[in-house]
This record gives sequence, structure tokens and C-alpha cells, in this order.
Amino acid sequence: MNVNYEECLQACLECLEACNRCYDACLGEENVKMMADCIRLDRECADICAYTAQAITRNSPFVKEIMELCAKICETCEEECDKHDHEHCKQCAEACRKCAEACKKAVA
Amino acid sequence: MNVNYEECLQACLECLEACNRCYDACLGEENVKMMADCIRLDRECADICAYTAQAITRNSPFVKEIMELCAKICETCEEECDKHDHEHCKQCAEACRKCAEACKKAVA
Amino acid sequence: MNVNYEECLQACLECLEACNRCYDACLGEENVKMMADCIRLDRECADICAYTAQAITRNSPFVKEIMELCAKICETCEEECDKHDHEHCKQCAEACRKCAEACKKAVA
Amino acid sequence: MNVNYEECLQACLECLEACNRCYDACLGEENVKMMADCIRLDRECADICAYTAQAITRNSPFVKEIMELCAKICETCEEECDKHDHEHCKQCAEACRKCAEACKKAVA
Repeated sequence: MNVNYEECLQACLECLEACNRCYDACLGEENVKMMADCIRLDRECADICAYTAQAITRNSPFVKEIMELCAKICETCEEECDKHDHEHCKQCAEACRKCAEACKKAVA
Repeated sequence: MNVNYEECLQACLECLEACNRCYDACLGEENVKMMADCIRLDRECADICAYTAQAITRNSPFVKEIMELCAKICETCEEECDKHDHEHCKQCAEACRKCAEACKKAVA
Repeated sequence: MNVNYEECLQACLECLEACNRCYDACLGEENVKMMADCIRLDRECADICAYTAQAITRNSPFVKEIMELCAKICETCEEECDKHDHEHCKQCAEACRKCAEACKKAVA
Repeated sequence: MNVNYEECLQACLECLEACNRCYDACLGEENVKMMADCIRLDRECADICAYTAQAITRNSPFVKEIMELCAKICETCEEECDKHDHEHCKQCAEACRKCAEACKKAVA
């Protein structure tokens, strides 16, 4: 496998983990209402990262289109997480940023 | 396909829809904190219903074990939704109840 | 829910079923080698249909982008299934055609 | 996160990758018919590993039941891959064996 795809796969797996941890933590926060968009985007992002990891490893004929969608969803999730001070949000934003970058590099 | 499997498939697809609608509505409720467990279980239940629908239609060798897990998750989601008065929770609880029953009938 | 989204959801669920049945049947054909691309595309298409059904029902902020991807994958799967005379391929091609159309109508 | 869960997560991600690579390679083998069961089980196993990775990271209330199912599917996929001499089957069988073990240790 091409090294950019390998990096993209690792970034997707790390982003999947960070998004789901952020989702779980957000649901346990005192002010859940403030985290509603974050919960929603964490699920969107974890799901597309899982989907992209499957696409890369099974050599999907649509892998580039899927990576482009993944980059877009990661960027939206990053923007939302960046609004919050929770440690889990900061970690999630960072993982999303790296994953979006890795997807764009792999597509290029 | 066996008629019980056909019924189980339809019940899974309806439950997937009801759970995701309940999830979306819960995230928009005034009191999101009160709905945190419901949000979590709606996602769990929508995901296992999608998984079970895939397993039934692709003739998975593990379809019975997957249906058993689906029944269990549906029952837990039903219990949680039954605690709330929102119309989306009532509809979700009913879809979960039917899906759990259909899974158990298909496994029997 | 918007009527075009409702139609798209139903088309996705029918396409998911047709693709997985075709996948299962292809794996049991005498000449599996001839069906290799069909098996691969059936899985791709069943997976994006399941993904799109989840996105529609949970009111995903990315639903239009996901529908566009779904339309593209459905069209590719339809083209492949159209090459074969098996009844399961014909049914799958028809479900893919309808799903691609419904996705494009919902996005428009 | 508990160290056994962390190990299980890593084993699931490696197994997902190995199963999908084996699936892709099997579809390109000269004798695809001989690999039909392997193709089918690779998809089953990749999907449950992706599902289990999601369950672990989002702190699913059903994580143990999901790990038990994952262990069972991994063992069945390992048995099938063990019948073949292809390098991708050997690697897949090894990843399945490790993943089944990690799931059982995490559940214990």
C-alpha cells in the first residue's frame, strides 16, 4: 500500500477513537446541552472514519471520493470541538485536523 | 427467505429509522441532559439494527447470534425510551419492542 | 421528512437488500471468477446504502454529500450487474438504478 | 481505558485490516471459487472488528457481548483462512487468532 494511504488509515483509526471518546465524555458532561452539536458531529466523524478505514483496506474503487468526504466531515467536527475547552474536545479537534490533512494528502 | 427473517428485516429497518429520529430529536430537546442515556442507546440500537439488516440480507453464517444481540440491545433501548413522554421516545420504544420480538421469533 | 428524502430512504433500503442478495448468490455461482467485480461492487453498494439510510434518518448535516456518493456507487454497481444474465444481477441492477435516481432527486 | 480493552482495540484494528486485505486479494486470485468461503468470512470478520472497535471506543454498554460475538466470528474466519496457503490467508488467520484471544481476555 502507498505510504500516503497507510498514513491516512492510521489517521482515520486515531480520529475514530478520539471522536468516540469525545462523544462518550460529552454525554457525561454537566452541561450536555452545550455539547449537543459536538455529540452529533463526533458520531458523524467516527462513522466516516470507520467507513474510510474499511474502504482503504479493502481497496475500494471509490476510496478517493470517500477520503474527500472524510476530510470534509473531519474539518466540520474539528471546528466544533475547537469551540470547547474540555480536554477530550481538544484531543478530538487535533485528531480531526490530522485526519483531514492525511485524507487530502492521500487524494492529491 | 424464510418469512420470520423477512419480518425481522422489516422490523430492523423500522427500528433503525425510529432510533435515529429519536436520537436527532433528543439532541434538539430543551433538556438534553435528561436525554443523555436515550441518545446513547438510540445510537447503539440504530447501529445494531443496521448491522442485523446487513447480516440477514447477505445470508451471514452468524445471523442468529447477531439477532440475539439485536434483541438485547432493542430491549434496553425500549426500557430507556419508555421512561420519557416525548412522542419520538414512545414511537422508538414501540419500534424497539417489535424488533426485539421479531429477532427472538426469527432465532427460535 | 421531505418526500424526496423518504423515497430515497426506501430506495436505499431496497438497494441494500438487492445488493446483499446478489453478493450472496454470486458467491454461490458455478463461475465465481466471472462474478468477482460484481461481488466487490455489491459490498461497496450495500455498505453505502446502509450508510446513507443512517445519514437520512439521523438528519446528518452531510446527507447531501453522502447521497451524491451513494448515487455514484449505485451507478457503478448497476453497470457491472447489467453485464450478467443472472436473475439476482438483473434485480440488483434495477434496484441500483432506482436508488441512484432517488439520491439525485433528493439532492437536487 | 483498561489495558485489556486497549489491547483488544488494537487487535480489532489489525484484524480489520488483515481481513480486508485478504478479501481484496482473494477476489483477484486465479481460483476465486476455492476462495468463496474465505471472501465471505473476511467480510463478516472485518465488519464485526469495525463494529467492536466502535463499541470499545464509545464505551458501549454492550461491549462485552459484542466482544464475545467478535471472538466467535474471528475464530471461524481463522479456521477458513488456515485451509489456504496464500500469504494473505496466513496473515489473516494470525490476525484473527490474536483478535479472538484479545476479545476473550477483555471479556474475562
